[in-house]
Amino acid sequence: MTIWDELKTRTVDGIEGLITVIVQDKDSSEVLMLAYANREALEKTAETGLAHYYSTSRKKLWLKGESSGNTQKVSEILVDCDGDAVIYKAEQKGGACHRGYRTCFYRKITEEGLETVGEKLFEPDEVYKKK
Amino acid sequence: MTIWDELKTRTVDGIEGLITVIVQDKDSSEVLMLAYANREALEKTAETGLAHYYSTSRKKLWLKGESSGNTQKVSEILVDCDGDAVIYKAEQKGGACHRGYRTCFYRKITEEGLETVGEKLFEPDEVYKKK
Repeated sequence: MTIWDELKTRTVDGIEGLITVIVQDKDSSEVLMLAYANREALEKTAETGLAHYYSTSRKKLWLKGESSGNTQKVSEILVDCDGDAVIYKAEQKGGACHRGYRTCFYRKITEEGLETVGEKLFEPDEVYKKK
Repeated sequence: MTIWDELKTRTVDGIEGLITVIVQDKDSSEVLMLAYANREALEKTAETGLAHYYSTSRKKLWLKGESSGNTQKVSEILVDCDGDAVIYKAEQKGGACHRGYRTCFYRKITEEGLETVGEKLFEPDEVYKKK
């Protein structure tokens, strides 16, 4: 992928060479999650059509759904003006959030604190127990 | 705002104490831009209803639209599972992108490179010339 050189990576928590990825449902436009990609992750996504990331906690390439089966089929990748962020337009299988919700953004800020507003689709303990 | 302590900030390009902000049109759900906020920026946004950020290039608090007039009226703030990213659901005046487009994500990746797909609303030279 020749466009990598047109991007401007950031260093996040000491990890160099990352861009930010917003995942958006290709039909409803709901924002499902935010993660990071390095060159390998972006290229694998473009090549395979399945969302790949760089896990900043596990410090390795991460195919979304490799544990849960909740893969993301990416049909379009948009790039922002700065070149430090992209959008994966995706078809999400199951829930995007490892806590069982459709979207990771399942809470909103209220005057009383954080209120859960998202839809829970699965019990994390049941989905991730095989690991 | 007491919820700040429930968030998990990141260090981006050596700048500590940041969360990532996705800005999404509250009606169309279009993703307009991605930026960063520190505690002051998030609190100012919640207090005033106008989107504030921390500019990683200028290293200071940034009221969106302070130069261009293209402010963002924020009606809801969503928080993700990790607490390192939020969504500002906003009403965007004019274009969000300093390059004159409605959204900063105005290009898509194709096999030939980056293709412009976004709508241009203004000429940056005319809007920012007063600075």
